[in-house]
Amino acid sequence: MEFTGSHILSIGQFQRADIERVFQVADSMEPYAQRRRVTRVLEGAILGNMFFEPSTRTRVSFGCAFNLLGGEVRETTGFETSAIAKGESLYDTARVLSGYSDVICMRHPASGSVSEFAQASRVPVINGGDGPNEHPTQALLDLYTIRQELSGLNKGIDGLRIAMIGDLKHGRTVHSLCKLLTLFKDIHLTLVAPKELGMPEYILDELRTAGHQVIHSSDMSQGIGNVDIAYSTRIQEERFVSKEEADHYRGRFRLNQAIYTQFCQPNTVIMHPLPRDSRADANELDNDLNQHPNLAIFRQTDNGILIRMALFALVLNVVDQVESCSRAVNWHSGNR
Amino acid sequence: MEFTGSHILSIGQFQRADIERVFQVADSMEPYAQRRRVTRVLEGAILGNMFFEPSTRTRVSFGCAFNLLGGEVRETTGFETSAIAKGESLYDTARVLSGYSDVICMRHPASGSVSEFAQASRVPVINGGDGPNEHPTQALLDLYTIRQELSGLNKGIDGLRIAMIGDLKHGRTVHSLCKLLTLFKDIHLTLVAPKELGMPEYILDELRTAGHQVIHSSDMSQGIGNVDIAYSTRIQEERFVSKEEADHYRGRFRLNQAIYTQFCQPNTVIMHPLPRDSRADANELDNDLNQHPNLAIFRQTDNGILIRMALFALVLNVVDQVESCSRAVNWHSGNR
Amino acid sequence: MEFTGSHILSIGQFQRADIERVFQVADSMEPYAQRRRVTRVLEGAILGNMFFEPSTRTRVSFGCAFNLLGGEVRETTGFETSAIAKGESLYDTARVLSGYSDVICMRHPASGSVSEFAQASRVPVINGGDGPNEHPTQALLDLYTIRQELSGLNKGIDGLRIAMIGDLKHGRTVHSLCKLLTLFKDIHLTLVAPKELGMPEYILDELRTAGHQVIHSSDMSQGIGNVDIAYSTRIQEERFVSKEEADHYRGRFRLNQAIYTQFCQPNTVIMHPLPRDSRADANELDNDLNQHPNLAIFRQTDNGILIRMALFALVLNVVDQVESCSRAVNWHSGNR
Repeated sequence: MEFTGSHILSIGQFQRADIERVFQVADSMEPYAQRRRVTRVLEGAILGNMFFEPSTRTRVSFGCAFNLLGGEVRETTGFETSAIAKGESLYDTARVLSGYSDVICMRHPASGSVSEFAQASRVPVINGGDGPNEHPTQALLDLYTIRQELSGLNKGIDGLRIAMIGDLKHGRTVHSLCKLLTLFKDIHLTLVAPKELGMPEYILDELRTAGHQVIHSSDMSQGIGNVDIAYSTRIQEERFVSKEEADHYRGRFRLNQAIYTQFCQPNTVIMHPLPRDSRADANELDNDLNQHPNLAIFRQTDNGILIRMALFALVLNVVDQVESCSRAVNWHSGNR
Repeated sequence: MEFTGSHILSIGQFQRADIERVFQVADSMEPYAQRRRVTRVLEGAILGNMFFEPSTRTRVSFGCAFNLLGGEVRETTGFETSAIAKGESLYDTARVLSGYSDVICMRHPASGSVSEFAQASRVPVINGGDGPNEHPTQALLDLYTIRQELSGLNKGIDGLRIAMIGDLKHGRTVHSLCKLLTLFKDIHLTLVAPKELGMPEYILDELRTAGHQVIHSSDMSQGIGNVDIAYSTRIQEERFVSKEEADHYRGRFRLNQAIYTQFCQPNTVIMHPLPRDSRADANELDNDLNQHPNLAIFRQTDNGILIRMALFALVLNVVDQVESCSRAVNWHSGNR
Repeated sequence: MEFTGSHILSIGQFQRADIERVFQVADSMEPYAQRRRVTRVLEGAILGNMFFEPSTRTRVSFGCAFNLLGGEVRETTGFETSAIAKGESLYDTARVLSGYSDVICMRHPASGSVSEFAQASRVPVINGGDGPNEHPTQALLDLYTIRQELSGLNKGIDGLRIAMIGDLKHGRTVHSLCKLLTLFKDIHLTLVAPKELGMPEYILDELRTAGHQVIHSSDMSQGIGNVDIAYSTRIQEERFVSKEEADHYRGRFRLNQAIYTQFCQPNTVIMHPLPRDSRADANELDNDLNQHPNLAIFRQTDNGILIRMALFALVLNVVDQVESCSRAVNWHSGNR
């Protein structure tokens, strides 16, 4: 695909070569994200960071990624909908707001809203999550993390063995990750979920069409026994009819140090899209793994910065100028 | 007037020459607003963008205008009033906040509050809307848009023929625009409104005192027949006693492609202060005009950036330095 | 203490020499805070301004201080707690957010939360107030103001005579100021409060252990008669069981022009941590003193900028580079 001036709305836009391009650019962002160097390549550019639904983490990550390229950020945080309440269409909102910035990141609770907004926008729009539908940068950062974690073991994404654990029915991130994996070869997936919270059939179809091996398991200890990645997810209480219904499933698949040691191979990498539910009745991924070197969950969020920087640089066509606009960091930047 | 260091609180401050000065500076901001060039003239300056009432559009517009001049923006978004709830006076709030920034833009729900704040402020204050009272930058951008749209037809503001349509009683923007028009010559106004939602008498007096021609009409098709500008407005439901009362008027004056073609002259420009109410029962300005070249509503909001940049540059006295602090844009800036 | 890379969590961290170091750096920030010069020493650095509880004043002050050093600010304003509501631990929040910025300022309603956050953070954390517990930058700016105000009279902090007036039980700021004063010599404190709202015993103990003289008085006119500083505080209604209980104390100690003239020495400086409650039934510090040259309350908030700039510069180790990264201001910066 041609990145310059494009909207980034769905992982369905990407071919394998596009993903590799994004990852290659993300790699090149590391010195800036780790504050070894500063680049000012987007000095003077403005990101409209339009969050029509609150999400501190994703909002701040997009904003910081843009700041790290030298640009400015103007934003809404999800509590102002005055114009929309007065009957304004998404078309009008998009026409107006896209006159104010060079690129827009948008989150909105309604499925399809970001695409509708993008159609009317005069500048590139990046989907920051449109309800239960898409959250493409999360899927990209997950796949990028898998690639990074396995590269130390001289493995690539082709041939990956991954277990996905938990609420696979409501988990937008595992759906998107599965879709991305269809672009790669020879993936072995073990899906560990209660029957009622299984991966939707249409995604299973896509995985099988891609020639991947899919195994279902309701026993986590078996499912995590022979994988490169154990990808844990949260029971998404807010998608259930009642707290009681969610409670029925909560805490059923818990990964902790003892279980990891007993059942996982020593190199198995632990991932989670975050937030993890650390309350006693949930605790799907125990804090006793916090110091484990294979716990990649915070490397995932760090990688989100790299992926978002890469997309901004690609869409605004400044990849080739990032380095020439850079210099060394002159403040204490610690040991990241 | 002397702009340097002044507050911008009311359109009543402006003489015709002042307005022409603002518009001339606004013209010079176009290369930066259209992202052909970047200027860093206000690098290091801080705007305090103090919105004590939510308004995404106006808040982001002021913030972007300041960023486009190279400055930084610190802001509140209308949901924090802890100090005021603890009994703090507007005087104290102003003394404190004006120590934090170089210029303040303020929106507040109470009439007169921004002037009161400005009296205590140690830095220039720009009124971003004080309840039903004033919103001077909106009036300036409306008049600037009229000037821009007519300049292509070799017309100026003197001699303007304009129809104002809808809720002329509650519409702050049409009130302010009328006041600005009293500074010009030979204006022909057609006011299309239900009797109960007519333009307030004191404004009619000012228009007549200025020697302008005012015609009242309750028939939109007649009113829009011979004008340069058809300025449509929304029924301001939130100002009515009940939704039912607002419903009584809603949808009474609808401008759409068919009506435009039948009744307007081919060069008539369509304006609206936005947001327009696109719900089926209102729809005062139909989406079927969205592609019409004479629909100026999004050029209005774009012009808001130019006007706000101009005011910041004038008040902070950097007009003469904008260009010398500029360079070409190095990222993809599309076809605006 | 070693400032580089350190968290600033509690005034208990500081020795007298540390405080003098902070104040010396704060002094050097004056040309930038007063907009005579611009420094870009932190250009490219990001402050994560994480306010999990609303506080316009403190939030904007921290943000502006960072901007004045040339850095960028990403922030939350206290209305987004989606991840925490989903069961995320403070540890996880800290690990994630500290990957996004170079330094974090955090406010949180729970005592001890900022320290807990700091333990998991990968970058320095500055406490912006953790509920009733600590607000170290407020204490530092108060003490810095005392030093500044007395330096014109050729006095230092040693030997200070200060009256603290009002709700000394709930006032976090007077508690912290007392603790800081234990680092200095020969302080004479007069505590003017209703018996039920007196200074907590453990603080009195610390003051006595430091060898300071503490006098209790329930008569303000006596208490303010022979002091360098009269430090007035608000009755903290929100900490009382009922509004009625707060009303019982409100308005009991009112300082105004007449009382000041009658009872204070002519050089006595008036301070207040703000917000002051200017409602008629409270009004602990009357507006008729607003023009008094000894009213230091807005110099206090201005000094907050200097203190916060100093802490950022120390923690990020750029004190020695501030000046070499500076230039003259090129916009109208008024008469501050």
